[in-house]
Amino acid sequence: MTERRLAQQVRIVGSGLLGASIGLGLREHGVDVVLDDASPSARRLAIDYGAGRAPAEDDAPGVVVVAVPPDVTAAVVQAELERFPDALVTDVASVKLQPLEELRARGADLSRYLGSHPMAGRERGGAVSARADLFAGRPWILAGHDGIAYRRAAALEDLVLDLGAIPVEMDVAEHDRSVALVSHAPQLVASLLAARLRDGADRALGLAGQGLRDTTRIASSDPALWVQILAANADAVREVLEPLRAELDAVIGALGDIEAPGARRVLAEAIAHGNAGVGRIPGKHGQDRRFASLTVKIDDTPGQLARLLTEIGEEGVNMEDLRLEHSPGAQLGFAEIAVVPDAAARLAEALTARGWSLVEAGR
Amino acid sequence: MTERRLAQQVRIVGSGLLGASIGLGLREHGVDVVLDDASPSARRLAIDYGAGRAPAEDDAPGVVVVAVPPDVTAAVVQAELERFPDALVTDVASVKLQPLEELRARGADLSRYLGSHPMAGRERGGAVSARADLFAGRPWILAGHDGIAYRRAAALEDLVLDLGAIPVEMDVAEHDRSVALVSHAPQLVASLLAARLRDGADRALGLAGQGLRDTTRIASSDPALWVQILAANADAVREVLEPLRAELDAVIGALGDIEAPGARRVLAEAIAHGNAGVGRIPGKHGQDRRFASLTVKIDDTPGQLARLLTEIGEEGVNMEDLRLEHSPGAQLGFAEIAVVPDAAARLAEALTARGWSLVEAGR
Repeated sequence: MTERRLAQQVRIVGSGLLGASIGLGLREHGVDVVLDDASPSARRLAIDYGAGRAPAEDDAPGVVVVAVPPDVTAAVVQAELERFPDALVTDVASVKLQPLEELRARGADLSRYLGSHPMAGRERGGAVSARADLFAGRPWILAGHDGIAYRRAAALEDLVLDLGAIPVEMDVAEHDRSVALVSHAPQLVASLLAARLRDGADRALGLAGQGLRDTTRIASSDPALWVQILAANADAVREVLEPLRAELDAVIGALGDIEAPGARRVLAEAIAHGNAGVGRIPGKHGQDRRFASLTVKIDDTPGQLARLLTEIGEEGVNMEDLRLEHSPGAQLGFAEIAVVPDAAARLAEALTARGWSLVEAGR
Repeated sequence: MTERRLAQQVRIVGSGLLGASIGLGLREHGVDVVLDDASPSARRLAIDYGAGRAPAEDDAPGVVVVAVPPDVTAAVVQAELERFPDALVTDVASVKLQPLEELRARGADLSRYLGSHPMAGRERGGAVSARADLFAGRPWILAGHDGIAYRRAAALEDLVLDLGAIPVEMDVAEHDRSVALVSHAPQLVASLLAARLRDGADRALGLAGQGLRDTTRIASSDPALWVQILAANADAVREVLEPLRAELDAVIGALGDIEAPGARRVLAEAIAHGNAGVGRIPGKHGQDRRFASLTVKIDDTPGQLARLLTEIGEEGVNMEDLRLEHSPGAQLGFAEIAVVPDAAARLAEALTARGWSLVEAGR
């Protein structure tokens, strides 16, 4: 049991990936976690995983966390507000404006409701995928609104900090616009691109490289969940996609008459605008600095990569990132290692002296 | 000097990433490589890197490889066909129909021209990024046409095999359609998506996770090169983007009137179609099998990852893939390891016994 901020009992409604992970994380701090779920068997499974205990008659939660699908979030939040008139109630749905509006329409006591959104998840859901440190180091948005009594919000911030997450305050509209840009629209675009592969010839798909894999990876997400998220944030997602469509129209027009004056300029600007956009994504550890990268040739065995990392450690250099580049069909690969720029030249020299084959140093 | 198939002298015109890498790879096999470039200083640099020797009066290449930008490829190929009337001439441009048509219009001797396209590259160009094994295990398309004398093509196949690449025969139209699908359209879509980030608030960008990073990674590509590629394959790229636009239109329409009958179904189908498409991308090593994955918690130091990989090696298990999951702002992470399904349960048990914390086993 480690140090904790949160002193109160916590009730979690919904025992999927998020609910069970919150329960596991709080239990590690010794918090009294009550776990409930509309499905008794789902609840039992999460309790078996150690995410909390079954509800009792005299439960008196200080905080209730509603972790149910977006389309039933508001109804469950309202029921919890009514059942526990002293508790702060939050939810963890990926959209924040719609539940708030629905609660307002229902006449709920908004002085005790503060929606939130942990920016964490996994491609696979359910309590079986839950982990206590799912939220460690990730932003967790506290989605403020006019009606909340801020004195009450402190308990939620304690909960977030106990889970190792980073509290970020945003109002509900800013939240929804932000996640439309960095999560919801990219999900749809990846899906639309991946959908083009359905009719591709096997021989064409056989040429796929890492670029296509990366670009379409998130397209394997669950349709049922995403329909709820996208429907609940429809306006903000549309506001991202409409200018994208305008630029796509221009690109298709340029491709359709490539010898027309200005056509090549349209294409160049599309690529250049992409350069500018991708350059705005912050680097690892939330910082906007660039790392130097070293690419080392390795054979395709864990032993050689392990030896490489051991030797990097022996040189006293901290590795900021690692990407493996595969050569399909061949038993060799490349490890691209990111380090702080100051360390790159020295590490390149040391690895070369140790017999490693570097294919590029620094940038 | 290792075993080789190719016996003839090879002349390479263009000393950028591809030309210099081909030179380096052939030199390792002891092939006599002549390196030329319109830029004397670029040529000197590549020769300094060991990619070949300077041209001489009595050069008599059996194969000429033209590795220049797409928009000058046909002109250079024709000049080489005329200058070396006994040589097979190939090019390595990312598009294949346009150079062939241009050569036909110029009245070139197509019986000695066979275009090709190595599916390999790096985000950074130039001889300074070249490496002898750039093509190892990668597909290398030989783009056939009616005019080629196939007896002459054998030398090019030898060159491809000497470089460790996998020769794939496709006609020029199939090639251009295939790369439009798996490379050119994804490049544009990633750029269009990344372009949306230009106007995003810093606080929104701060929420970016791995999904956004993966989806937009290739958007950092060079505009000047990509304009040439896209312009030269405009029709095939348009044929991928037009149905994408149709589906995007439907999605935007659904988002604009989300309560209309059928709107949610449009969204669900977009995501489901993406599921189906991404499922068609072959796995690592060109095989379409699934691996089991184990996720192991590690702290953010090379030493611990090295120890993990060493111990996996000690267990006699071959790691098929490795992905690091970072927690921005936190000093911990997760290593997701892919292994053959048969080995997963045993490895999970062994790693747990060795004290590692596994967050999910198999799937």
